Amino acid sequence: MSRIVVIGGVAAGMSAASQAKRRRPDAEVIVLERGPDVSYGACGIPYNIEDPAREIDDLVVIAAERFRTERGIDLRTGHEAIGLDVAGRTVRVRERSGEYDLGYDRLVIATGAAAVRLPLPGADLPGVFVVRELRDGAAIKQHLAATRARRAVIIGAGYVGVEMAEALRGRGLEVTVLEKADQVVPGFEPAIAAIVQDELVRHGTRVETGVSVTAIEPGLAVQTDRGAVPADLVVVAVGIRPNVALARAAGIGLGDTGAIAVDDEQRTSAPDVFAAGDCAEARHLISGHLAWVPLGTTANKQGKIAGANAAGAAERFAGIVGTAGFKAFDLEVGRTGLGLAEARHLGFDAIASRSRHKSRGHSYPGGTDVTTVLVVERATGRLLGAQMIGEDAGKRIDVLATALHAGMTVDDLEGLDLAYAPPLAPVYDPVLIAATVARKELAAT
Amino acid sequence: MSRIVVIGGVAAGMSAASQAKRRRPDAEVIVLERGPDVSYGACGIPYNIEDPAREIDDLVVIAAERFRTERGIDLRTGHEAIGLDVAGRTVRVRERSGEYDLGYDRLVIATGAAAVRLPLPGADLPGVFVVRELRDGAAIKQHLAATRARRAVIIGAGYVGVEMAEALRGRGLEVTVLEKADQVVPGFEPAIAAIVQDELVRHGTRVETGVSVTAIEPGLAVQTDRGAVPADLVVVAVGIRPNVALARAAGIGLGDTGAIAVDDEQRTSAPDVFAAGDCAEARHLISGHLAWVPLGTTANKQGKIAGANAAGAAERFAGIVGTAGFKAFDLEVGRTGLGLAEARHLGFDAIASRSRHKSRGHSYPGGTDVTTVLVVERATGRLLGAQMIGEDAGKRIDVLATALHAGMTVDDLEGLDLAYAPPLAPVYDPVLIAATVARKELAAT
Repeated sequence: MSRIVVIGGVAAGMSAASQAKRRRPDAEVIVLERGPDVSYGACGIPYNIEDPAREIDDLVVIAAERFRTERGIDLRTGHEAIGLDVAGRTVRVRERSGEYDLGYDRLVIATGAAAVRLPLPGADLPGVFVVRELRDGAAIKQHLAATRARRAVIIGAGYVGVEMAEALRGRGLEVTVLEKADQVVPGFEPAIAAIVQDELVRHGTRVETGVSVTAIEPGLAVQTDRGAVPADLVVVAVGIRPNVALARAAGIGLGDTGAIAVDDEQRTSAPDVFAAGDCAEARHLISGHLAWVPLGTTANKQGKIAGANAAGAAERFAGIVGTAGFKAFDLEVGRTGLGLAEARHLGFDAIASRSRHKSRGHSYPGGTDVTTVLVVERATGRLLGAQMIGEDAGKRIDVLATALHAGMTVDDLEGLDLAYAPPLAPVYDPVLIAATVARKELAAT
Repeated sequence: MSRIVVIGGVAAGMSAASQAKRRRPDAEVIVLERGPDVSYGACGIPYNIEDPAREIDDLVVIAAERFRTERGIDLRTGHEAIGLDVAGRTVRVRERSGEYDLGYDRLVIATGAAAVRLPLPGADLPGVFVVRELRDGAAIKQHLAATRARRAVIIGAGYVGVEMAEALRGRGLEVTVLEKADQVVPGFEPAIAAIVQDELVRHGTRVETGVSVTAIEPGLAVQTDRGAVPADLVVVAVGIRPNVALARAAGIGLGDTGAIAVDDEQRTSAPDVFAAGDCAEARHLISGHLAWVPLGTTANKQGKIAGANAAGAAERFAGIVGTAGFKAFDLEVGRTGLGLAEARHLGFDAIASRSRHKSRGHSYPGGTDVTTVLVVERATGRLLGAQMIGEDAGKRIDVLATALHAGMTVDDLEGLDLAYAPPLAPVYDPVLIAATVARKELAAT
């Protein structure tokens, strides 16, 4: 008997289970998912909320039943792993009708991450939501439909906060975004964050930065250190945290980031136990360190590798360079590699160079400005990171991500032969302009 | 005295002149442009034609007068270089009022390329146009305005033919495209070309491939080996040819492609004579050979380097990988590197792998399929070329162009950390899917 158990049935978990079964059709592959939903695109929740006509289940990529019938996976929804004995190779499982022990030969932990809830009075009031799981999205849609909410307050201006601002403005609500840090999208370079904030404001969102929420009062009212903001709907988007309680209790090693430490084959410190996705770390190819950058792409890729290796392969995850993208109303925003502060913190002698250029060819209608920040090592000119905002920034950042993977310098970047046609790009793409500007700034320092 | 003379005042020429003057403000920089217009974006002509309200001069990036007053360049429009004595360092110039000799210390040849005219009866009839210079665009707009042309025939289905089909459909004309080869966009992989053709047809364009035009008759009627097609407007878009007569007559070496041979500092075979842009070759980094791929980006970059080096620098052009993009109605099309036939012709043992994936995330509205062809070296998995069609293909191809510059294999490609958010891309971007499919096909061969 060979049994592969996977804990968690979203991106990493279902990728792992599918890959394991594909590699070893003879193996018994069991997935334990505590919730009712599997294999859904959580990143699509804000866009689903924006459209009242769409069912939340549209976000399910592959229905649970298809995993069972078509892929031969023993998928157990409503089954929660509540204990793990890595010496005895047993998972303790709780389901509606009781508890049971489940032995395994290989285990994949894909427990994901959970939304951080505010440790404040009123954080659990009706009308206060996080945006993480499918049922969160369903609850927000139901609330909108049932209460005809008119005023939304979003606490936190990270990706999810910005996406929810767009979604709720799209539903016609008055939206206020409250951010504790002194800029929106903390972690982005200030020049990029300022443009995100302008875009929020341009679309009628009220934005307050440097503000602390102290309580949420029934009614609803969000109390801050600057006064109260009345709301019919409150979205808490202050970040996520890896679900590591099960692993930690089992004695599995966590990394400095607090997520589960893994090697590049997704192996944890426990024998035959793998971890993948938002609960696990990943090798950051630019810093060289293990990092926790929980994103859907990485979850899918790591899950696939954990599943393959649980089935006996020895595949390696290529690592990350920290690429991420999101949309803020009419602009795309992308980042890859290190920010300036992060680079300096890691000991790089780095500069940040900012440039701005059009997204389309001369005299071609439409398009936007594209602002780019390149983070560059001073002595070598090596690219360490990049951030962009504007039309197609979510694609242009991929060029810079590829350059990071290849260890390119700004000279290499400037020499890239990129596509040009007036609807697509200017003669000198913003990526090339950014390289030229950075090269000149390096020469001047 | 130090005098730098530039022959040609469009992309490469004005880039060279501007760069030379910037490097050597004390030098006398003279530009000889035989036409009336300088520094215009020829690639924008179809889009300008599409909009009757726009002036053709919108395509001028920097007005002639500004080069004279702001940049201190002696820009001579209506002055044609008709002879060149490289031993005597003299250009023979013809202008409206006569001819004169102009000595130089350094010379940049940026004579560009000219549209190929059909060697057929009726090719010069009124109502028959090419699309190359600003005045060609002006003439077409004038013809459309004056004649209320209803039926257009486009001879040639390369980039320009496809762009003109879109422009003239946009103006409400009936459009027929006639292509001699057995597919549209010859040089593209058949799988990509078929989708371009479908897109043309979907937007009401009549397309005939494998058809030969034999004459254009007054009236107008385009005679083919399959019968006559009546037209009120005929656009001949059968390619361009480098303007090398002046250089050839002066004994300057041409390459195998027929364009002017240059080294990576843009030097020709004649002392202190540089060449840049559509009249010159460029090093193709994947084939290793000198190639003639006349495009606006390369013209601007080579011009800048020729100008810098004419001013005494020793900069090197990084070379090309053959990246190009264009728009075909609602789809973007991109290519980079070698096509399959080209790769095999050069002696590579290559395969072409085709894949198709969505352009946006699961359940995010809109988007298109993206079809990708990767050309890959069989033994090593090294990427040799790529072609894509679909939403954002003009940007996604830049990722593959960057991978080509870096010498990446399909394994490297598959490991790229690219941006994901539902409006921007699926969890696995089409680039990553293409790499996975190619890797599997390699493993199966």
